[in-house]
Amino acid sequence: MSEASGPRTLRIEGAFRLAGGRSLEGVDVAYETFGTLSPNGDNAVLVCHALSGDAHVATGPGLDGATCPGWWDSLVGPGLAIDTARYFVVCANVLGGCSGTTGPGSIDPETGNRWGLRFPLVTIEDMVDVEARLLDALGIERLLAVVGGSMGGMQALAWARRYPERTDAVIAAATTSRLGAQAIAFNEVGRSAIIADPRFAGGDYAPDAQPADGLAIARMVGHITYLSQDGMREKFGRRLRDREDHAFDFVSEFEVESYLAYQGRRFVERFDADTYLYMTKAMDYFDWQPPAGTDMPRFLVTSFTSDWLFPTAQAREIVRALLSRGAELTFAEIDSPYGHDAFLLETEQQGALIGAFLERILADRNRCAERRVS
Amino acid sequence: MSEASGPRTLRIEGAFRLAGGRSLEGVDVAYETFGTLSPNGDNAVLVCHALSGDAHVATGPGLDGATCPGWWDSLVGPGLAIDTARYFVVCANVLGGCSGTTGPGSIDPETGNRWGLRFPLVTIEDMVDVEARLLDALGIERLLAVVGGSMGGMQALAWARRYPERTDAVIAAATTSRLGAQAIAFNEVGRSAIIADPRFAGGDYAPDAQPADGLAIARMVGHITYLSQDGMREKFGRRLRDREDHAFDFVSEFEVESYLAYQGRRFVERFDADTYLYMTKAMDYFDWQPPAGTDMPRFLVTSFTSDWLFPTAQAREIVRALLSRGAELTFAEIDSPYGHDAFLLETEQQGALIGAFLERILADRNRCAERRVS
Repeated sequence: MSEASGPRTLRIEGAFRLAGGRSLEGVDVAYETFGTLSPNGDNAVLVCHALSGDAHVATGPGLDGATCPGWWDSLVGPGLAIDTARYFVVCANVLGGCSGTTGPGSIDPETGNRWGLRFPLVTIEDMVDVEARLLDALGIERLLAVVGGSMGGMQALAWARRYPERTDAVIAAATTSRLGAQAIAFNEVGRSAIIADPRFAGGDYAPDAQPADGLAIARMVGHITYLSQDGMREKFGRRLRDREDHAFDFVSEFEVESYLAYQGRRFVERFDADTYLYMTKAMDYFDWQPPAGTDMPRFLVTSFTSDWLFPTAQAREIVRALLSRGAELTFAEIDSPYGHDAFLLETEQQGALIGAFLERILADRNRCAERRVS
Repeated sequence: MSEASGPRTLRIEGAFRLAGGRSLEGVDVAYETFGTLSPNGDNAVLVCHALSGDAHVATGPGLDGATCPGWWDSLVGPGLAIDTARYFVVCANVLGGCSGTTGPGSIDPETGNRWGLRFPLVTIEDMVDVEARLLDALGIERLLAVVGGSMGGMQALAWARRYPERTDAVIAAATTSRLGAQAIAFNEVGRSAIIADPRFAGGDYAPDAQPADGLAIARMVGHITYLSQDGMREKFGRRLRDREDHAFDFVSEFEVESYLAYQGRRFVERFDADTYLYMTKAMDYFDWQPPAGTDMPRFLVTSFTSDWLFPTAQAREIVRALLSRGAELTFAEIDSPYGHDAFLLETEQQGALIGAFLERILADRNRCAERRVS
């Protein structure tokens, strides 16, 4: 059967040591799977989600059991680039997140209270360690590929460095080996807006009384960096909303203003302010070096022409670092007007690249297996 | 004498009609002059300031009488491009501002209270009308040139459209004929941060109890848009402040974070939150068409390679619009790593261009005057 598992949770018992030096006593990992693991467990693809994503990468039952669409439905599904009729797709909510995996909104077992900012800072590498433990539990020794865009791409890169022996391939889209000063600065603006909101209360707000204004502003800033200048011009231009001429007051009147305000409000409904701090900090800290050994996965690195958050120049830095270690890789800059969001929106070109890359990885693996048999 | 006037104020009496339809009963204009007006009043250059600027364009006495530096000391002064030994330079605080000219922080004569958000929205054209009335009072019928960068450049363009007969030349640097959706979006983020600050109180905060957090966040966002991505990387990179390794907490640790926080705090000390709303709105509304008649000033339009807020493509739109009306113009894209701020920082190339342009304007004016005499 090639079905979606729906939301599941794995409990990792015992002390889970983090890069920052602290430990968590037990970690819950919320995850979903799509498709069927082959008898010898060799068809698994791990998808890593980005800042505001979650485990629900493709259509399947949600928390209430009803079927709902996934955030990467254009690429993950039966017959698609990441073909759930052939591959066993695993996607986990990241450590520090707010969709079921242990994070600042979880209960600190020592105090019985919500962690808030007492939760330890987590790194991209910590997220990857949790994913590795999940694969252990699922009986997946080696992945066909680990795939992700943006912060998901950072996790994919971290996999290559941390567990090079556990994956045949790494697909890193719209990502960077380290944030530049501008991206850190935008993250800091978002964090400042959250922390300045009086309802933030040092991170100890009640779950139903979030610092909504601060989180919405953080999302507005973020959202601008996900779109391209030309894309915004085409989408909104200077069009006014529901009126012919200027109002000469401070009510939102340009379409782009109400769109952003709407994005901010909607985000607050499904995301957590403390988690926003932890995720952006994990990205700021990420500072990746390519795998040191010679047994390295193969790489597909993609960037998008209009992505100015993690522009092609930063993808080229990844490529240069990998080539200097003799890695085998494919690099493609995809032409797109969608800015950073292109990794979520560009179906055709991205799908063709990822689909063909996975086919090649699978074919090579089968060839090697045949050779070993004969 | 070629001296700085120090801060002065002109009272414009009577109803001052605004583009939005409302009127102000009397307007105060705070301004400064540098150099000496020639006997026939033909050497005047009006400099228009940008969002956070003021009338103190060059070194001279400040409010307390002590000499202090100006914001364009690299271009305005004796022997410089805008040579105060030869030209009579006028610079006024804009309408709606917070440095002496009537704005939301002024007293509403009808109620005796601070205007706050009851102050009418002002446009770039309203600012220019105030400047024109100031020139009337100073006995300046026709300018040699009107000069400005960013929002100052918008004023310069508005002069060309509104009073084409009153200036020989227009110098518009790092500016645009209309903001795109992205620039409006960044402005809206800043406004949202101010309005969300509980101390904002609908704009009716006490002058000594500003919505400091909101205004600082607005400035942080703005500041990022004034720098270039490469410039930020060179200036800050990923350097940590006062430490070797990550702290694993939420205290600012990257240099770029503390720099931005500092810029935010410093801005709050010298700027007003309500004014920030009015200035950004005036920019959002600006939507310029070139002069309609044939008697047009000459133009110098400049842009800067790394300015992504008002990129060269937008300067080219100004140029195309002017050329379609048969305007005489010089256009230069100046190579600079300083982003939008380059118009404040690029001394040599910008100075040479502006200096030579003004020389030519002056020479042509003198030639015409000689012809008229002979």
